[in-house]
Amino acid sequence: MGKTIAEKIFAAHLRDTPSAENMVLDLDVVMCHEITTPIAIMDLMAKGMDKVFDPDRIKAVIDHVTPAKDSKTATQGKIMRDWARRHGIKDFFDVGANGVCHALFPEKGFVRPGYTVIMGDSHTCTHGAFGAFAAGVGTTDLQVGIYKGVCSFRLPQTLKIAIDGKLQPGVTAKDVILAIIKRLTVNGATDKVIEFVGPVIDAMGMAARMTICNMAVEAGATCGICLPDRVTAEYLWPFIKDQYADIDAAVADFTRWHSDADAVYAGTIQVDVTDLPPQVTFGYKPDQVKDIGEMAGTPIDQVYIGSCTNGRIEDLRDAAALLKDRRLAAGVRGIVTPATPKIFNEALQEGIIKIFMDAGFCVLNPTCGACLGMSSGVLAEGEVCASTTNRNFNGRMGKGGMVHLMSPYSAAAAAVTGAITDPRTFL
Amino acid sequence: MGKTIAEKIFAAHLRDTPSAENMVLDLDVVMCHEITTPIAIMDLMAKGMDKVFDPDRIKAVIDHVTPAKDSKTATQGKIMRDWARRHGIKDFFDVGANGVCHALFPEKGFVRPGYTVIMGDSHTCTHGAFGAFAAGVGTTDLQVGIYKGVCSFRLPQTLKIAIDGKLQPGVTAKDVILAIIKRLTVNGATDKVIEFVGPVIDAMGMAARMTICNMAVEAGATCGICLPDRVTAEYLWPFIKDQYADIDAAVADFTRWHSDADAVYAGTIQVDVTDLPPQVTFGYKPDQVKDIGEMAGTPIDQVYIGSCTNGRIEDLRDAAALLKDRRLAAGVRGIVTPATPKIFNEALQEGIIKIFMDAGFCVLNPTCGACLGMSSGVLAEGEVCASTTNRNFNGRMGKGGMVHLMSPYSAAAAAVTGAITDPRTFL
Repeated sequence: MGKTIAEKIFAAHLRDTPSAENMVLDLDVVMCHEITTPIAIMDLMAKGMDKVFDPDRIKAVIDHVTPAKDSKTATQGKIMRDWARRHGIKDFFDVGANGVCHALFPEKGFVRPGYTVIMGDSHTCTHGAFGAFAAGVGTTDLQVGIYKGVCSFRLPQTLKIAIDGKLQPGVTAKDVILAIIKRLTVNGATDKVIEFVGPVIDAMGMAARMTICNMAVEAGATCGICLPDRVTAEYLWPFIKDQYADIDAAVADFTRWHSDADAVYAGTIQVDVTDLPPQVTFGYKPDQVKDIGEMAGTPIDQVYIGSCTNGRIEDLRDAAALLKDRRLAAGVRGIVTPATPKIFNEALQEGIIKIFMDAGFCVLNPTCGACLGMSSGVLAEGEVCASTTNRNFNGRMGKGGMVHLMSPYSAAAAAVTGAITDPRTFL
Repeated sequence: MGKTIAEKIFAAHLRDTPSAENMVLDLDVVMCHEITTPIAIMDLMAKGMDKVFDPDRIKAVIDHVTPAKDSKTATQGKIMRDWARRHGIKDFFDVGANGVCHALFPEKGFVRPGYTVIMGDSHTCTHGAFGAFAAGVGTTDLQVGIYKGVCSFRLPQTLKIAIDGKLQPGVTAKDVILAIIKRLTVNGATDKVIEFVGPVIDAMGMAARMTICNMAVEAGATCGICLPDRVTAEYLWPFIKDQYADIDAAVADFTRWHSDADAVYAGTIQVDVTDLPPQVTFGYKPDQVKDIGEMAGTPIDQVYIGSCTNGRIEDLRDAAALLKDRRLAAGVRGIVTPATPKIFNEALQEGIIKIFMDAGFCVLNPTCGACLGMSSGVLAEGEVCASTTNRNFNGRMGKGGMVHLMSPYSAAAAAVTGAITDPRTFL
């Protein structure tokens, strides 16, 4: 019987099977940020178990609230900093070198096809875009991962989503994944891996694939996965060029992770995106999604462009294309946070930072910030935000606030008009 | 008997003298930010007195914690925002258009020689650099100011500080004012106005004069004042050009605010700065100041360049001159926050943002942030910051943190070496 990519990764990393329910996997990368990791560190210290399984396979960053907003977050940062120094964790990214984990770590080449990755963060599934199994875990699992380099999982079933057709100009990966979450509902892929395949995925760059995989968790999935191909190899080439004669060789090698033709799936869904209009959420669940036309005219107070979903250079380029020579509508606040220093630097060189500033945006340092209401753009009671982030839960961006999830194009269009607007009217 | 500039401004604005102790002055400008103003607004509303004396003479900004870091600060912003809209306060600066009040308001031309200015902020004295009487006030005074456009003061005595000599390269206005505060002590000018005069002040641009006046309050002064001259007129020219035939005419007109030759002072202090080395604070009071050589080698964890004291383009240029082609020392975090969007834009155009980023700094949006430990760079217990800000009070930048006040040159030198360092070794 053939195997899915997830099953192949599980098989290649299987350390132990204590019960039929549990497969203990060796971990290639344990990712850490300052909100969930300090609890694990402090607990390990309290138990006299202050060690790490392999400092080279731990990647750590301060990204959620940075620079620190108060003594609590300053202390969280210091716990991470001291821990990284104590254990020789060289891939630790502090203020100035830090960025949103799920944008920063891929850009550093930390994730490869076939890897197992965990992090104490819901959107760890982003890294599945590289053909890895990457899952968000709780503090206990994170702690075991840091200490022993293993994590226990139930063998996941895989849901295949085949995406056909051709996206219209102004319609992006964000619109595709919102449409898919609408169809699946927030529980539609619970405890499953979603394998995204088809010509639309094949044609996407890594940024778009990361956007797609990032939100797999919003349909309940443990991980979203794309099959590693030439696009993956080209992105990773600076980091893998010593291991392969050329890119063709890397592409060929990556195929060992491809799902077999006779692999068994929990289900297969066909999606055609040719006629898909831009999508936008309403309400407090990410499956509450409408075509943007149905929401057009809804007034907004704030626009937020950034996050692990849509804070990459490709996203900023989309928004800037629309914002160039235009200004924020009166009374609307605009916030943009390039997801990493490299992205900020590219945006600087390409004139994109200038476009945002000329449009009246506040340009923030890279941070998760307002996406989860922890800093840098929290909404007040009754305020509405057009946001490129991934969750519209009640109070997510601030108590009493309403978040409408959408693409960077759509967020830029809302910025200019002051209301939800189909961006295609500007393109 | 002749009058000081402060006495002339008082005489010109005197509305009433309810007692020998109290002079009620008409206010030209009432400045507002989101930390102290919402309390006044809410109290006025509770009393059914929700009005403003003159929407054109109220200038308001969200600058201390911006964008909002939590629901509390989001609500403070919303109170300001709704209030500005309700009363037609057109000079209200929200996210994206906002910056540190004492840098933003001068740059907008809101302060003129002879003006009376209040704000619920200690460093309101900054605006004295324009030959205005500008004082920080408490909530009750602010509330009366907003409602009636008046404020009650005791006629201040004036302390004259005459600054002679010539500053060495690498020695700046910040070093001068730190040396003066050391000499006066933190109570040396309590309830007095400090009039800064002499060739060193005459040779300074407005940015340097604002740095000097900004810290007058650290010696207890109600206001620091510089006499308005050609430098003042040139800075203000875009805003006053319709009122005068030419700059000469403005300069001539400004002399009516100059202190008379026979004015009476509470004291006069002569300072010669020719041999002044860069200055730096130790301890938790701004009069605890040493020559930088005495503190050299003190390790630091963070460098903060910004604030109403030293976040202007001139300050960023100083720091960038030293940081160009250099990098932050290992383990040191660098934070720079241009004080206004205009300054950020200038720094962008001049390549200064790039220099800071290449050096490894985190480039923040304009905000007061970490200066007063409210956001954007709060220190953890035991951490040390080389800072261009104005207060080193115990816990000011975070509980258990230590702040060493210094110039942008000195902060940049500390960034590169990881310890307090005489910047002249790099220049």
